[in-house]
Amino acid sequence: MTINYFLGAATGDHTRVLLTLFLILLAAKLLAELFERLHQPAVAGEIIAGVLIGPGLLNLVTPSESITTLAEIGVIFLLFNVGLETKPTAILKVGRQAALVAVLGVAVPFGGGWLLMQLWGGTSIEALFVGTAMVATSVGITARVLSGMGLLDAPTARIILGAAVIDDILGLLVLAVVSSLAAGSVNYLEILTTAGLAIGFTIFVALVGAPVVTRIAPRVDRLRSGHGFFILGLILCLGLSVAAVYIGVAAIIGSFLAGMALAEAAEGHPKMHRQINGVTEFLVPFFLVNIGMQLRLDVFRSPSVIFLCVLVTMVAVATKLFGCGLGAISLGLNRSAQVGMGMVPRGEVGIIVAQIGLGLAVIGPELFGVVLFMAVATTLIAPPFLKLLYAGEPAATQEIGPADAGGIVASGDLCKIG
Amino acid sequence: MTINYFLGAATGDHTRVLLTLFLILLAAKLLAELFERLHQPAVAGEIIAGVLIGPGLLNLVTPSESITTLAEIGVIFLLFNVGLETKPTAILKVGRQAALVAVLGVAVPFGGGWLLMQLWGGTSIEALFVGTAMVATSVGITARVLSGMGLLDAPTARIILGAAVIDDILGLLVLAVVSSLAAGSVNYLEILTTAGLAIGFTIFVALVGAPVVTRIAPRVDRLRSGHGFFILGLILCLGLSVAAVYIGVAAIIGSFLAGMALAEAAEGHPKMHRQINGVTEFLVPFFLVNIGMQLRLDVFRSPSVIFLCVLVTMVAVATKLFGCGLGAISLGLNRSAQVGMGMVPRGEVGIIVAQIGLGLAVIGPELFGVVLFMAVATTLIAPPFLKLLYAGEPAATQEIGPADAGGIVASGDLCKIG
Repeated sequence: MTINYFLGAATGDHTRVLLTLFLILLAAKLLAELFERLHQPAVAGEIIAGVLIGPGLLNLVTPSESITTLAEIGVIFLLFNVGLETKPTAILKVGRQAALVAVLGVAVPFGGGWLLMQLWGGTSIEALFVGTAMVATSVGITARVLSGMGLLDAPTARIILGAAVIDDILGLLVLAVVSSLAAGSVNYLEILTTAGLAIGFTIFVALVGAPVVTRIAPRVDRLRSGHGFFILGLILCLGLSVAAVYIGVAAIIGSFLAGMALAEAAEGHPKMHRQINGVTEFLVPFFLVNIGMQLRLDVFRSPSVIFLCVLVTMVAVATKLFGCGLGAISLGLNRSAQVGMGMVPRGEVGIIVAQIGLGLAVIGPELFGVVLFMAVATTLIAPPFLKLLYAGEPAATQEIGPADAGGIVASGDLCKIG
Repeated sequence: MTINYFLGAATGDHTRVLLTLFLILLAAKLLAELFERLHQPAVAGEIIAGVLIGPGLLNLVTPSESITTLAEIGVIFLLFNVGLETKPTAILKVGRQAALVAVLGVAVPFGGGWLLMQLWGGTSIEALFVGTAMVATSVGITARVLSGMGLLDAPTARIILGAAVIDDILGLLVLAVVSSLAAGSVNYLEILTTAGLAIGFTIFVALVGAPVVTRIAPRVDRLRSGHGFFILGLILCLGLSVAAVYIGVAAIIGSFLAGMALAEAAEGHPKMHRQINGVTEFLVPFFLVNIGMQLRLDVFRSPSVIFLCVLVTMVAVATKLFGCGLGAISLGLNRSAQVGMGMVPRGEVGIIVAQIGLGLAVIGPELFGVVLFMAVATTLIAPPFLKLLYAGEPAATQEIGPADAGGIVASGDLCKIG
């Protein structure tokens, strides 16, 4: 129509973006509900919604700058939420165990990926890159499954969270070394500097940030412009995410630490919890659907590629399960399996590594597709097994302040999943 | 550093987007707090934050697809929130009065803008376009000021909201006719069809939507995937926004109607209110800063342009104040001034009209700058006067269900401003 045409002159792209957001939200929530009814994790349903409506199948929506931004903010808030439920002391208590899990969870998958590609006949730099992609851990997926079950307080949940932070720093260093090798020269001094910065940032926020925030928070709540504590949370969350990225680690490490620093002060603020929870619930579907949308079915051109996809995915699952599980073996077989499975999803971190490899031209589009498949597949495989492995754990009790009679049921309410 | 360089290969743009979001949020909230302390409206502070950090002055951030999307979702949620506080019956009660305000609020500014440009020596199509830009009303700004003062329940607030909906439909038709004239031919049948669609959509959602939603809502709340009612709200809000845009009216009309349809059912859901409130408070700063960022100071190249800017802005304020005030004169002088001032901000709607005019090449970059200035200036002028004019009104009492001991203080808490 004429009118829509004229309006379209200024708002055409805009309309499409709005329609895309609506379709993503609708598809994600329909599939989540369907999966719940089939006793499967909603997380998997929302990722599959992305595969369905994305370029892989129906092509109703395509990745865009706006969706990527919403997805990124979504996972940032997801980890911020998890951080809000995690007091620094709880993580420090499991520090040694988490460090062991992280180191083995980096070494074994790296070795496994490298060896597989050597046996497959890839170049040595290809082998190094596939190994690096295997190192990645996307803790957002596991965090969502566990918080949905009200199990962020389970002992192994703390270990997984702590290990994921350390894993991200180690993964950064592996990526730096491998990328430098690919480019021809390794500057160890620079890599050491970055390592120092990343470790210093983490320790500083975890140890110094929390007490400072706990002291400042009551004053912020008295600010004139209202919602002071919520605003402080938003600013810390985005600010530390940006700082983390500039230092070189993932943005979610920053937002997780921001949440942790606020955890103590936030206990008496059910209102702020609900507000942050609203932002998270609105944005997380974009994160999950965006992962599903990355899957490219045109990778499956030849039987040998399909075979490689399956092989890489199997090695990816087995090496994290074995490596991280070995690090936690002192907790018994069941709990070490919980930890191992919790570290399996590669998600957006694996995808970023694949993109860097493609950008550096050290892996071709075919191997890029294989790594992408592995990243999405491991993310889909883990949630159902996590539900099974954690089925016996008792859910956390209510732990948030009494001010809210409506009641936030601790973590279980934060990111409902099952 | 090497590492950041390599990570930057895949995440460079991304990092900048994240930094931009952080800077916008920080600047908006600092200026909001400063303005509150100076007893000025926070809304004006956040728009001025956009002028300061935008390309107009410091150039720390520039408009981008991501920010535009966040801004658009922000104003959509703002009006959804306002709709949630507005029962359809309350609007219907003031229907005749609102219609009168809307009609005079379209006719007088259009005539004023047209006459001014004729006297100034513009072409007749330029005069028609400036008149059309004068017609626009950005009800988001007024809604935020009033809800911040807890005055969404004031009698004149209902009239302003109702008039804004009718105004948007009339404005659409004026824009259609003027745009068609600019393109050379007017298809009255198409324009009538669109008018019918827009009116039908509004009446259908307002009258049929509310009872249907009130019946469905309790069932939705029992869905497995959790947060059922909140998710229903999100889907209705985005869905009706998209529908509104496809029909030809502004997205915020759709989200306002979605909120109104849910208003009755939402009364017993303080949790859902808080969650929607969190999304709104997070996103609205992007909407306000984005308006400020549009201001271009390079318009002021010649004294005659500066003079035209001031003249157009003065006529824009005077004609809405007089036209809408005249429509509400039966309420007495003070209340008719409240209504008139409430309709003054042109905000994003005026900016869209200016963009369409530029896109059709019927106004040049200079006149585009003038209209843009008028849109931002009227948006900045109104809030302080609104605060003054409403200073005597008693704030609304608590009206949201008793389930939440923490207490949502009705509308006053939704968008804190004064």
